[in-house]
Formats: sequence, structure tokens, C-alpha cells
Amino acid sequence: MNQSMDKINKFRDERDWRQFHNPKDLSISISLEAAELLENFQWRTSEEVLAGDTENVKEELADILIYSFMLASDLGLDIDEIIAEKLLKNNLKYPISTSKGSNKKYTDF
Amino acid sequence: MNQSMDKINKFRDERDWRQFHNPKDLSISISLEAAELLENFQWRTSEEVLAGDTENVKEELADILIYSFMLASDLGLDIDEIIAEKLLKNNLKYPISTSKGSNKKYTDF
Amino acid sequence: MNQSMDKINKFRDERDWRQFHNPKDLSISISLEAAELLENFQWRTSEEVLAGDTENVKEELADILIYSFMLASDLGLDIDEIIAEKLLKNNLKYPISTSKGSNKKYTDF
Amino acid sequence: MNQSMDKINKFRDERDWRQFHNPKDLSISISLEAAELLENFQWRTSEEVLAGDTENVKEELADILIYSFMLASDLGLDIDEIIAEKLLKNNLKYPISTSKGSNKKYTDF
Repeated sequence: MNQSMDKINKFRDERDWRQFHNPKDLSISISLEAAELLENFQWRTSEEVLAGDTENVKEELADILIYSFMLASDLGLDIDEIIAEKLLKNNLKYPISTSKGSNKKYTDF
Repeated sequence: MNQSMDKINKFRDERDWRQFHNPKDLSISISLEAAELLENFQWRTSEEVLAGDTENVKEELADILIYSFMLASDLGLDIDEIIAEKLLKNNLKYPISTSKGSNKKYTDF
Repeated sequence: MNQSMDKINKFRDERDWRQFHNPKDLSISISLEAAELLENFQWRTSEEVLAGDTENVKEELADILIYSFMLASDLGLDIDEIIAEKLLKNNLKYPISTSKGSNKKYTDF
Repeated sequence: MNQSMDKINKFRDERDWRQFHNPKDLSISISLEAAELLENFQWRTSEEVLAGDTENVKEELADILIYSFMLASDLGLDIDEIIAEKLLKNNLKYPISTSKGSNKKYTDF
């Protein structure tokens, strides 16, 4: 992952793109790439998508990750660390005992 | 990163949640978390957000990463690999010579 | 519809909110409300949602419309007119002969 | 507005597209069009966008409205009515006295 982060930062530094990468526009960019991922599933079931060419799914998912890594880097956040912290928090919101096999939101328990 | 992936998959397996995690709904979930991240910047500049409490920014970014890791895992994709591949592709779309210091889309070159 | 537009503009003028309503943040707001609408369908089929309480679906759809009407108003656009124009354009992209009964994008014809 | 609704429904009926238009996929479609609208503002200020060609802004806004009108129609909802109801509800959440000139969320009052 550190290797991915280095490649991503090298890519934008070579293009002098950090001047555009403020957190608001990076957050917009993550939203736009998430929509491009989701567009693969518009009017289609998961099964229909998986039965076809999933190259674009892979590419849009990569774009989401690339912008997310950039934002983490710019905010001085460690990817593994913020994931671990959020899982701990989710563990409190969704204890195994009440959430096992349920798709309910914690606000609906 | 492998460590993060293992923690994420352990979290959902303990709750028997893979039954809900089809690629279409995971893609929807990434979009929803991206919107929750972006909500921090609604009516605010990046500077105003960075001057305040960024705890929620960190948490929503973590949620985007967690769902993205799940989708990658379910599609049998390696995070570092798809990022490296996409950067190579972006390198062709955005050669340093034409894109340095420019925020134009490759379709507008 | 003119009546709706008047009510919406009165609502924000009474609160002196036009100062926040630049087109970029209004577009962000439409995206956020669209995500809140979509959240009703996360992990659920259309049928499951329609079988339950659809009050929130109605409210989030209204929020999307309210922000869209504001943006149209601020850009001096007439709702009926831009819809009519877009339908004419879509008619060229999706002629009845090639698109009847098909969910293909025009780029895939 | 009734005239717009009639045109929109005629457009999809001529193409036999109602079979694809379940509420979940219509909600996805609104999100996708909202992202396409927002893409106009990626890396740009509102002023920069307004100084250029806003044709695409107009078209994406029309697409958001078209899908929103379809969803309202399919759920048997009247556009003017749900807007009026939501403004009444917002009036309670954001009383003029506490929200005038403020961009705070009602949860932060």
C-alpha cells in the first residue's frame, strides 16, 4: 500500500496537479468516480454485470481508490489506521449479537 | 493492506453480512459514503473545513475505503495491482507533456 | 410549477440563504439529496421498499426537486423548456426504431 | 409541469422503457445524472463555470428533472404537492429566527 501511495503521489507531482487537489474537489472527484462505477449497474442486476465484461468496474474502482489515497495523503492520514479505527467504531454500533444476519441500520435497532 | 483486507472480511463474516454484499449494492454503498464525505464540504470551502473538526471527514473516507476493499475482495481484485494498472492507463491519457499544470480533461486536449 | 418556484425562492429569501447558493454548492446539494434518496434502496429491492413506508423516499425526492428548481432559477432557466429541449435531444440519441425495448446506451448501438 | 410530465411519459412509453424503470434504478439514475452535473464543477469555481459554456449544466439538470419526474409519476406523487409539503417540514426544522443568514444544519443549532 505504501508503494501504491508513492506511485499515486509521483503521478500527480510529475503533472504539477497538487495545486488542483484541495480536499473539497478531491471529495467531489471520489463522488464522480463512485457514480461512474455505479453506472455499470444502472438497469442491470449484479448477475448481469458479472456475466459480462467487468473491465470498467475494475477501472472505476481503481479511480475511487486513487482519489481516496490522495485525500488521505493530503490530510496526513494512514489508510490502515483509519480503516482499523472505523472498524472498531462500527463494532460498537453493530455488535455481533444484534446485527448478525440483519441488514438493519443501527438507528433502527 | 492485506491486514486491512483481513480485518474487513472478518468484520462482515462475523455478522454474516456477505449475503447482502452483491456488487450492485456495494457500489451503491460506496456512492452513499462518498456523499457523506462530500457533505462535510457543502456550503463550505476546503479551508473552512480544515480549520474545524475533521473527524467526520476521516470516518467517511474510511467507510469509502472499507466498501471499496470489500468490492475488490469479492471480485478477486488486488488493490495495489488495479491501482498500478490504472495509473499506467492514465499515463497514456494524460502524458506529462500535455497535462502538466493543466486541469483539462483528456477529451478537451 | 411557477407556484412551486415562487414558494422555494420565498423560503430561501426569508432566511437570507442566497449568499450560500452558488451553482457549485447547489450541484453538490443535489448530489447529496440524490444519495439520501438512494439510501432507501441500499441492500433492498424496489419491491421491499414499496412494501414499506415510502415517506422518506417522497421527502428526499422533494429535496432533489427543490435544489434543482433553485439552480434553474439562479441560471435563468425555465424548467418546462429545458425538459422539452432535452427530450428532443434524447429523441435523436435514442430513436424509437433502435431503442424500443432496449436498455443499451446510445454509445453501444 | 403537467405538460412536461406528459411529454416524459410519452417518451418512455414510445420506447417501451417502463420495464426498466423500477424505483431503485430510477434513484440510481438520478444519482448518476447529479454526478454528471457536478462534474462541470470539478476543479473549477462557480465563477469559472459561469464564465464558460453552460450548455452541459443545463442538459444534466434537465436529466435530473426528467428522472425525478418519472419516479414521482411511478409513485403517484404530485410534484407541486411534495415540494409544498417538504417546504412546510423544512420551515419547522429551520425557523426563520434561528436560521436566517446561517449555513448551519438544524442538528447543529
